[in-house]
Amino acid sequence: MINETYKAMLKGKSIIRELSEYATARGKEIGYENVFDYSLGNPSVPCAKSYTDTVIDMYENMNPMDIHGYSPSLGIESVRETVADSLNRRFDMDYEAKHIFMASGAAGALAHALRGVTKPGDEVLTFAPCFPEYFPYVNTTGAQLKVVPANTTNFQINFHEFKKALNPKVMAVLINTPNNPSGAVYSEDTIKELASILVEKQEEYGHDIFIISDEPYREIVFDGKKCPYVSKYYDNSISCYSFSKSLSLPGERIGYVAINPRATDADIFAVICGQISRGIGHNCPASTSQLAVARVIDEVSDLSVYEKNMNLLYDALTRIGFEVVRPGGTFYIFPKALEEDANAFCMKAKKYDLILVPADNFGCPGYFRMAYCIDTEKVERSIPVLEKFAREEYGLDF
Amino acid sequence: MINETYKAMLKGKSIIRELSEYATARGKEIGYENVFDYSLGNPSVPCAKSYTDTVIDMYENMNPMDIHGYSPSLGIESVRETVADSLNRRFDMDYEAKHIFMASGAAGALAHALRGVTKPGDEVLTFAPCFPEYFPYVNTTGAQLKVVPANTTNFQINFHEFKKALNPKVMAVLINTPNNPSGAVYSEDTIKELASILVEKQEEYGHDIFIISDEPYREIVFDGKKCPYVSKYYDNSISCYSFSKSLSLPGERIGYVAINPRATDADIFAVICGQISRGIGHNCPASTSQLAVARVIDEVSDLSVYEKNMNLLYDALTRIGFEVVRPGGTFYIFPKALEEDANAFCMKAKKYDLILVPADNFGCPGYFRMAYCIDTEKVERSIPVLEKFAREEYGLDF
Repeated sequence: MINETYKAMLKGKSIIRELSEYATARGKEIGYENVFDYSLGNPSVPCAKSYTDTVIDMYENMNPMDIHGYSPSLGIESVRETVADSLNRRFDMDYEAKHIFMASGAAGALAHALRGVTKPGDEVLTFAPCFPEYFPYVNTTGAQLKVVPANTTNFQINFHEFKKALNPKVMAVLINTPNNPSGAVYSEDTIKELASILVEKQEEYGHDIFIISDEPYREIVFDGKKCPYVSKYYDNSISCYSFSKSLSLPGERIGYVAINPRATDADIFAVICGQISRGIGHNCPASTSQLAVARVIDEVSDLSVYEKNMNLLYDALTRIGFEVVRPGGTFYIFPKALEEDANAFCMKAKKYDLILVPADNFGCPGYFRMAYCIDTEKVERSIPVLEKFAREEYGLDF
Repeated sequence: MINETYKAMLKGKSIIRELSEYATARGKEIGYENVFDYSLGNPSVPCAKSYTDTVIDMYENMNPMDIHGYSPSLGIESVRETVADSLNRRFDMDYEAKHIFMASGAAGALAHALRGVTKPGDEVLTFAPCFPEYFPYVNTTGAQLKVVPANTTNFQINFHEFKKALNPKVMAVLINTPNNPSGAVYSEDTIKELASILVEKQEEYGHDIFIISDEPYREIVFDGKKCPYVSKYYDNSISCYSFSKSLSLPGERIGYVAINPRATDADIFAVICGQISRGIGHNCPASTSQLAVARVIDEVSDLSVYEKNMNLLYDALTRIGFEVVRPGGTFYIFPKALEEDANAFCMKAKKYDLILVPADNFGCPGYFRMAYCIDTEKVERSIPVLEKFAREEYGLDF
């Protein structure tokens, strides 16, 4: 018989997917160029040319057996070394290949990291607003995800609520900086305070509490800044990375888990991930993607469009009268809706062919997300429409 | 804290991996060409040239956004259609795209199929000899794998033992034809008898019993024969395929789940697999691999070397005096050891730099596996060594 648990999950269809499908269908009616589709976080810039050139070079000049052979279950050794070296060079860390586990994108990385440091019945804390897929990621392991309410002033961490949520069952804290959906980049102070609370609580509870840091947006930071590297500030930390956004390769499912060399059992954690793989049928990202990203490890696509789009939207939204925190990175912006019910707000926006995602599922009711990984030209055309919508539906005058 | 269950799994290190590592280390001492390494089932022929050409063509001529964009979680729609069409054409089935779920190799396919039709506490039956990784594949889902003893006469199914093992907790039967490690190809009669027993037991128990058919060796069949397509013979059947062996792409992790259109809930099964993916962090094989295999869907690498090697080894082993069933496919042969303890037998073989895998972990003590996916020249050179080994250690005269 078909497993009823998964059958039941079908009902919880992703609102993002639903809106994206609506946008596509609407596009067929009126031309997709006329739909201001801010629903999906799908990178809008092509992958770096060096990645394309690398794969062509590999396929033209390497022995196919060396490209397509089984990868060891922890990842290709030379690739793990390259990842470790790059992280050391960029973030002044001391990873070795043994601390790196190659994974199928951030989802694969998180699946391993979560299983590695929790067991059924444990709790994992995360901070609102958060990516809705964190719920299935955590809850299907048997552990339980609890969401700490947002700090809506600046979308840093709400430490008051965090302290209330901590209890001895918490084995991991899942963070995402730069953040989907708020665009917030956690400051050094935020990370230091988080670390100091966890150091204290580890002592009090007598067990490790891991920070699992979901970092696919690490390279998309604005104003010439850098995202503080979480593992610099806390020993029991696991970095989960994907090349989906930095190299615009979401379809290739390529990323990694990097365990802090100072973490408990750091030297065996990648091997543990290999054991987890045996059960979930993961068995490595594609060998082509592993070998190719290693050759362009420190490169990124031209990501400048995201900052340009953000500035356009931030300026327009504030001028119109939205309450909105300026994103420090990502390709998301997270304004407060113009009425209490963000679902109703987004339904009204649909009438203007503005596809906005209500944030109830992100644990932050009353807000909405705009994924501005679209052409700048379209962002520009959407602004008068946003203005019209705010004027006509909410009587704003600006 | 690091999850103790996975930590404990580290002790159960794969004997195959251990022997393969030994062979590599020994190769560094005496030259790998002098080690007769029959340990690993790693394809020894290069991928089809058309695959290489296809990827180069895609990277040279397609928009990178179309190659590397997110794949829908069930797989790229056009690829699913191509797979369905190919199966229909080749096996006279009536799949539609909705019955196909693209998966990361056979391991990924099995992870989804198993979770889709069982729940914790259920039983899954399989037949000895079987691939040892079936244990973690099944047991980490919460269901339990039970192994039906082998039919050592011809390595078809031991129906007497199968009937004894059946009980109302059995929700799935996991089969592998052509079989790793025996090389047996289940005959039409075998599959029909299996189907008829299951039809009766479904009725008796009042619930579905699925056949999960693990088919990575489907295209490696000898003597000009074809492997009977399991889903032709039983409605509740799920085909789990990988292109690893047919196209020699093990590192690319590309395969699929195909649910029989006549199975219970066939129309939603791929969607259920998508839900399972959300929990195990699978999210599709690489988009490049999906698009490329679709373009060469009915092609295979030059697989003739496997049949040549099989004939050489089968002739030599029978001449030497081994009890051995002639393989109908795969790149494995499965003789009876020359003493009761196959581990001791394989240890002695190591002294001759013959790397043979004892079959205790395959659920068939007293036998051993030779993976002859190696150069024919090496197979030829290994035969006098096999002879010497049998003569010196077991006094065989032939």
